[in-house]
Amino acid sequence: MTVLVLTCEQDVTADMVVDRLNARGVPLLRFDPADMPARCAMSAEYVHGEFEGYLSTGSRVVNVDHIRSVWVRRPGLPAAHAEDACEWLTVECAQAFYGLLEGLGARWMNPLAAADRARLKPWQVRLAHRCGFPVPATVVTTYPQVAQRFAERYRHVVVKSVSGRPAGEPPVALPTTLVPADADFSSVSAGPTLLQRFVGRSADIRLTVVGDQFFAARKVSAADQVDGRFGNTGECWRPVETPGHIRRAANAYLLSAQLVYGAFDFAEDADGTWWFLECNQGGQFGFVELETGQPIADAVAEWLGRLSG
Amino acid sequence: MTVLVLTCEQDVTADMVVDRLNARGVPLLRFDPADMPARCAMSAEYVHGEFEGYLSTGSRVVNVDHIRSVWVRRPGLPAAHAEDACEWLTVECAQAFYGLLEGLGARWMNPLAAADRARLKPWQVRLAHRCGFPVPATVVTTYPQVAQRFAERYRHVVVKSVSGRPAGEPPVALPTTLVPADADFSSVSAGPTLLQRFVGRSADIRLTVVGDQFFAARKVSAADQVDGRFGNTGECWRPVETPGHIRRAANAYLLSAQLVYGAFDFAEDADGTWWFLECNQGGQFGFVELETGQPIADAVAEWLGRLSG
Repeated sequence: MTVLVLTCEQDVTADMVVDRLNARGVPLLRFDPADMPARCAMSAEYVHGEFEGYLSTGSRVVNVDHIRSVWVRRPGLPAAHAEDACEWLTVECAQAFYGLLEGLGARWMNPLAAADRARLKPWQVRLAHRCGFPVPATVVTTYPQVAQRFAERYRHVVVKSVSGRPAGEPPVALPTTLVPADADFSSVSAGPTLLQRFVGRSADIRLTVVGDQFFAARKVSAADQVDGRFGNTGECWRPVETPGHIRRAANAYLLSAQLVYGAFDFAEDADGTWWFLECNQGGQFGFVELETGQPIADAVAEWLGRLSG
Repeated sequence: MTVLVLTCEQDVTADMVVDRLNARGVPLLRFDPADMPARCAMSAEYVHGEFEGYLSTGSRVVNVDHIRSVWVRRPGLPAAHAEDACEWLTVECAQAFYGLLEGLGARWMNPLAAADRARLKPWQVRLAHRCGFPVPATVVTTYPQVAQRFAERYRHVVVKSVSGRPAGEPPVALPTTLVPADADFSSVSAGPTLLQRFVGRSADIRLTVVGDQFFAARKVSAADQVDGRFGNTGECWRPVETPGHIRRAANAYLLSAQLVYGAFDFAEDADGTWWFLECNQGGQFGFVELETGQPIADAVAEWLGRLSG
């Protein structure tokens, strides 16, 4: 029985989990779809109701019916490293490879379809509401007057990208930004705009959930910090208890989203309330583990290596 | 209560269903995400656990909580018609729009995630096997020797594209093609190749399933026809009964795939066996309805207009 780790070559977070799988004596295959079809090969035969499939990298060959779980960490674009790389080859390799894996009945961290849906921010906000998280008031709109009314009502609002960050090289980061009081909203009609009530924060919270294990960490914010991801405050991530109501809300969220792994970001206000900002189904955890010593990689390895459930 | 029809402007199949919805007195909104953000607008507010959302096209505004069902027919790429169209705007519009719709709890024909998975051909073949369809022996491989062995074993094999057809303008069709006896398989290592035992056919079968309604049609093949989609034989589609075991297999397939609409293609051999070729979750039905007179558009309209279930 083998764990399939889908990721690219340079991935420290994956290295940590691979280490833990090795320590636990769990066989694994590290596979990057970007290396298809030359360095990573596949074969699947469907004959008279019988099925036989293989994946191989270098000299290792794995019978796919022996794959007990798949960790979708950071797989490259299929065939991206191919000599004759092109969109058509990428699509062919993606369909062949994921079409093979989807039929296996392995356990997934996280299931592909669930992961796709979980990236949709308006969907996250509504689900978080329903699961009982405190969520700052949010609007997503193409109407300038709706955006303006929202900004007037809440006074301090931030603007975020709806989808995360723009594609392209070099990657551009779009930090969450405070909207000035005299902002002109006319360009909202040029593209959907996400505004959110600004939560003045005393700390950032990162809650990493792996199956039924919770790892919460807290980092004190600078007084005027708007986006916890940017600006070095000199503070470190420190372990913190997960309150019971947050635990219940996170369980409800992951269950409804059909996820087994999620990295939740919260802003903690002066009253100690954790405000839901987002849940990243593929969020990194290496930096939290290194600063807090929380055994997140081991929890991931334990989940992947488990024989069932 | 409104039916949301997601499609582009030129879509005769959608026109047929819109006609039937009008005849049934069911309100609908025809919306093309390609027309975002100028001609098609959206707005969603998430405030203190309450949610309010709107879609509008031209002068029509619909409260999204009144959407009872969504028909994903042939939606354009979000923002494709925008003045400043670019990949970034497409991603932003897609996330905002589908992120809004996914949270609604409407009935979908078909659910987005299920539709994505249902396009994977290797997955289709394995599921079809499991559901009891006769399926011609199939291999998907990047190993030249596996492809060669398969061709030697079955003698008459066809090669197909794994993913359907290449992207790009103008669109290129890739007909299913017989592999010559002296074929050189060395280029299989350059990209995954799908080979299938060739089924000598007396007829093509198209089975369109809409919820629990079955519409099967049959077209007599020319003696040497390999791909039913190409070559004019002068024959017409004619209605035909769906055998009980095919009905059961198709029900099992759609249930397992979480689809409510599917267009199955079969090759009928000289013994009258229907061999599963593929199930297209978004397959056209206009041409079948026009030739057979089967009321498929009305069945789609009935499903979309239904109040529940």
